[in-house]
Parts: sequence; structure tokens; C-alpha cells
Amino acid sequence: MSNRPIGVFDSGIGGLSVLRELLRLMPDESYIYLGDSARVPYGNKSVETVRLFASQCTQFLLSQDVKLVVVACNTVSAVALDAVQQAISIPVIEMIEPAAAAAVERTVTGNIGVIGTRATVGSRAYNVAIHRLQNEREINVYSLACPLFVPLVEEGWLDHPATRAIAQEYLNELFRPCAAATGDDAETRIDTLVLGCTHYPLLKPLLRSLLPNVHLIDCGTYAAQVAYAALQQEETLAFSGEKSTLQPKVRFCLTDILPNFAPIAERFLNFSVDDVERVVIDHPLLAPERKVRLER
Amino acid sequence: MSNRPIGVFDSGIGGLSVLRELLRLMPDESYIYLGDSARVPYGNKSVETVRLFASQCTQFLLSQDVKLVVVACNTVSAVALDAVQQAISIPVIEMIEPAAAAAVERTVTGNIGVIGTRATVGSRAYNVAIHRLQNEREINVYSLACPLFVPLVEEGWLDHPATRAIAQEYLNELFRPCAAATGDDAETRIDTLVLGCTHYPLLKPLLRSLLPNVHLIDCGTYAAQVAYAALQQEETLAFSGEKSTLQPKVRFCLTDILPNFAPIAERFLNFSVDDVERVVIDHPLLAPERKVRLER
Repeated sequence: MSNRPIGVFDSGIGGLSVLRELLRLMPDESYIYLGDSARVPYGNKSVETVRLFASQCTQFLLSQDVKLVVVACNTVSAVALDAVQQAISIPVIEMIEPAAAAAVERTVTGNIGVIGTRATVGSRAYNVAIHRLQNEREINVYSLACPLFVPLVEEGWLDHPATRAIAQEYLNELFRPCAAATGDDAETRIDTLVLGCTHYPLLKPLLRSLLPNVHLIDCGTYAAQVAYAALQQEETLAFSGEKSTLQPKVRFCLTDILPNFAPIAERFLNFSVDDVERVVIDHPLLAPERKVRLER
Repeated sequence: MSNRPIGVFDSGIGGLSVLRELLRLMPDESYIYLGDSARVPYGNKSVETVRLFASQCTQFLLSQDVKLVVVACNTVSAVALDAVQQAISIPVIEMIEPAAAAAVERTVTGNIGVIGTRATVGSRAYNVAIHRLQNEREINVYSLACPLFVPLVEEGWLDHPATRAIAQEYLNELFRPCAAATGDDAETRIDTLVLGCTHYPLLKPLLRSLLPNVHLIDCGTYAAQVAYAALQQEETLAFSGEKSTLQPKVRFCLTDILPNFAPIAERFLNFSVDDVERVVIDHPLLAPERKVRLER
């Protein structure tokens, strides 16, 4: 049993969709959520820079005595996981492998789509993981970077006609090579789509309406299951006598107090966030850490 | 006369639209362009963080012995100009006032629109500058944050149907209160629109087609004129015997070598950029500075 918190980090706010799944599965745990909002986004930046930032996020969480680190960011999971795992002895949960395993298990046609940031897709991390997990089958992976989805989600344009048009264009581009290769009948179509960026689960209703016959894989769901299993194995699950009905126990730490954090966080979490802390993870000369009560 | 370079900085690549105007007006000058691409964008971040980053950019340019600093970023100009001007004795050129002056001079109806990032619009810096410059007239300013324009420009979706639809929606929202207040005849309509973000000049063809009767103010054009006047006054203009036909003399410094910098830079500058330097402006422990030849 352990009352130490679970550490969750992301480049910004997308990781809140993972936190939501963790809270759903493990409501009795306490959490520290770190968003590197001063330097968000990571998804278009170089591997070298993402690795540096990820190391700094990890060091911050370690300094808070967390019992488990959840890398709630596909970009970091794809290009900088070893930078996180270096010099860390507690379990690290990342986004790629749990989602890849779920996609392999789910697909019937053997054709899987993956969408994510430019860095994630460029890394081919999902391709590698899926092919490692495919066993005897031959699975094809079709992937596409969808860089406009992140700003659209952050604007809250979740079902806007422009978002719909952009999504349709991205999906056409994603599905075209599979259709060309296989003839596009129901038995060979992409039937499983990995939402390989923690912002994308907010687009699930839209994507479901555009792709009624495709199974959508939300990384957070499967990563949360792996986190649960890891804590169970370590025997460090938090104890609770009965089903919790309390407020979620989350400390929100940001490297920049984004002016619009409160409404965005609420959109991801479905509960309101009142207190956030500004923390410094990169530079000893920065302004001191401080707590802020959000205006709404 | 001075052969010292002009320092130009921006959160990322938007400032290249200002550099283009500087090069057009002063092709014989040499330039150092600093893009803080590791932490881009600034426009949705807090004033406190933008001020810190702007100070670090300024310190870097000073260390390079520049003779003039051009703040090629509306967000920094709007919320952090004093952080740049502190401890600096060379001239500083910012984006707001030259564009505001041009808009005041140009408007006939006395109704000016301003579009920019959330930070720029929230600061009301354009409103303040325009009202200070309006003299005897009464000028109304209508402003709107258009946060999706930056990612759309960075994706190169300059004339995409989705960009057109989003622009139309933003413009409707911008023009509606003016029309409601004045009755929307030609004599009272917004006739001048300040493109208050250095990314937006790339949308000029699209905006011109949507607003054929509105004069578009490109900050870079007017800031370049002010920079020229400042150098002339200081008697530090670079000497050139004849009209230059050489390659532009620009050193490109970035805090992160963005994987897609080369095509984006070419879109802004209309010439190809081959060499960029990764520089460190925030942390002594980062990887050493290094030069990179871009792949294309």
C-alpha cells in the first residue's frame, strides 16, 4: 500500500485525457499532473529538444516522490522514452505499447490506422510496436500526422464545421493508400484507428460520426490499465475502504499558468480545476514557484 | 556607418515576414534572426512567461553585438516591450506603434479592425496606441484574437477551403459589432485591418479576396521604415556603393532546429535558407550550440 502520488506529465494539457482515464480506474489514488505549458507543444519540435524537456519533466516528478510516472504524451513516448527511463527505478507507463496491443487485438481486417503529431508519426513508434505484437498475423499500419487537431481541440472547436472538414480531409488521406492497396471492400478496410495523441480523444464524437464502422483506440484507457497492473504488481496501490465519492485528489503543476487553462481543463476532465501551481523545471533563475487561484 | 548586424527576434518563424520587409528596404544590412522555436508559440502564454522569454532573446542578441533590435513579434511588443528595453541602450523597434500610426493615417471611416494572438488582443496595446495617435478624430477599434491562423499558416494551408471558412467566421465576428453600432453603410464600415501578428501577412491574398475594400496593414512594412529612420538618425546605416544583388546576409539562429523549418522559411522569405544554428538562450546546461545543414 502506498499513499505516494502518481506522477503524470505532458507537454501541456492533452495529458488531462489520460488523467481522466486514470481517475476513472483508480479514483482513490492521488496524482501530480505536470504540464510543460511554457514550452507546449512538443509535437512539431525536434527529437533532441523533446528529449531534453522530457528529462526535465521526469526530474521534477521524481523530486515530488511519486511512485509511478505516466508519460501522458505520445510524442515523448515515441521519441524520448529512454530519456525518461534513465536514472529512474520506479515504473514508467507510456502511451504507445498499450494502445498498439489494443489495436492488434481489436483489428479483424489487419489494417490499422494511426494518427498523431508530426514527431510521433515520424518516429514510426506505433509501426514498430504493432509489428512486434502482431505474432503470426500480417498487420499493415497506415499513419498520418494531423497537426491541426491540437490547436482545434485547444480552441474547443470539437464539432465545428471547419474541424469536420479538416478531419474529413485528413481521414481521406489516411484511408486512400489502404483502399488503393486492397481494393477497399469491408474485409480489407482499416477497421481500427489509434488516436495517437492525447488531445484527440476529445474529437471522438466527431471521428465516430465520420467513421461509424471503425474502432477508435484511446491511449489513456489502455495506459491506465497498464498503470493499475504495475501498481498491483508492486503492491503500491492506494488503499480505500469503500468506493470514493470525494473530489479527485490531483495537484496541478504548470510551467506557465495559461490564461485559458481553467475552461480547457474542464473540457478534458468534466470537473472544475480551481488551484494550479506554477513550477519551474528548467532554470534556477526563473521567478519563484507560486500558487494561483484561477479566474473563471 | 556600421557593419554591425541588426538583431531580429520572434517566438518562432512569424518574424520572418518582418525580416523580409527589412531586407526589401535595407538589402545591404546584415542580420541575425533569432527564433525561440523551442518554446514557440508565445501568443497563448502568460504575460509573465512572455516577458521572461523576451528578456532572454534580447540578452542573446546583445551578446552578438547588434546595433538595433527589432522585436518582430506582436505578442512581445504588446506585453513585454519594457522587458526588452530594460538595460539596453541601442534602439528597439517594435510592431505596434508603426502599424497603429499607419492605420490611423489610412482609415477614412474611423473604424479600424485589429486581429492578433490572444495575448496581443488581450493586452489592448493596439487600442491604446491608436487612441494616443488619433488626435482630434474619434477612432473606434474592433479587435479579435484569431488563434487558429498561426497553425494554419505554419501548415502552409494559406488558401485552403478550411482556412477560408475559419477566416470568414473570424471576420464575421470582428465586423459584427461595428455593423451593429454604426448601421453598416460604406461610410462607417471598418475600412482598415491591422494584421497584428507576424504570421498573418502570408494570409494577405486570402484576406484581400474576402475583404476587397479593406486596407490591410502589414506591421513589417511600417516597422522596417521606422528601423531605417532610426539607423539613419544614429548614422549607423550600412554602407553600400551600389544596389546589392548578393544573397541576403542573414544568420539564422533557432533554439530548436524545427524539422520543417526550411520549407516554412522559404514560404515566408521567397529564398532558400540552407544554414541554421541551434543556440541556447535559457539554460547553461543545454547541449552545446551547433550548426546544422538543413535537409530538403
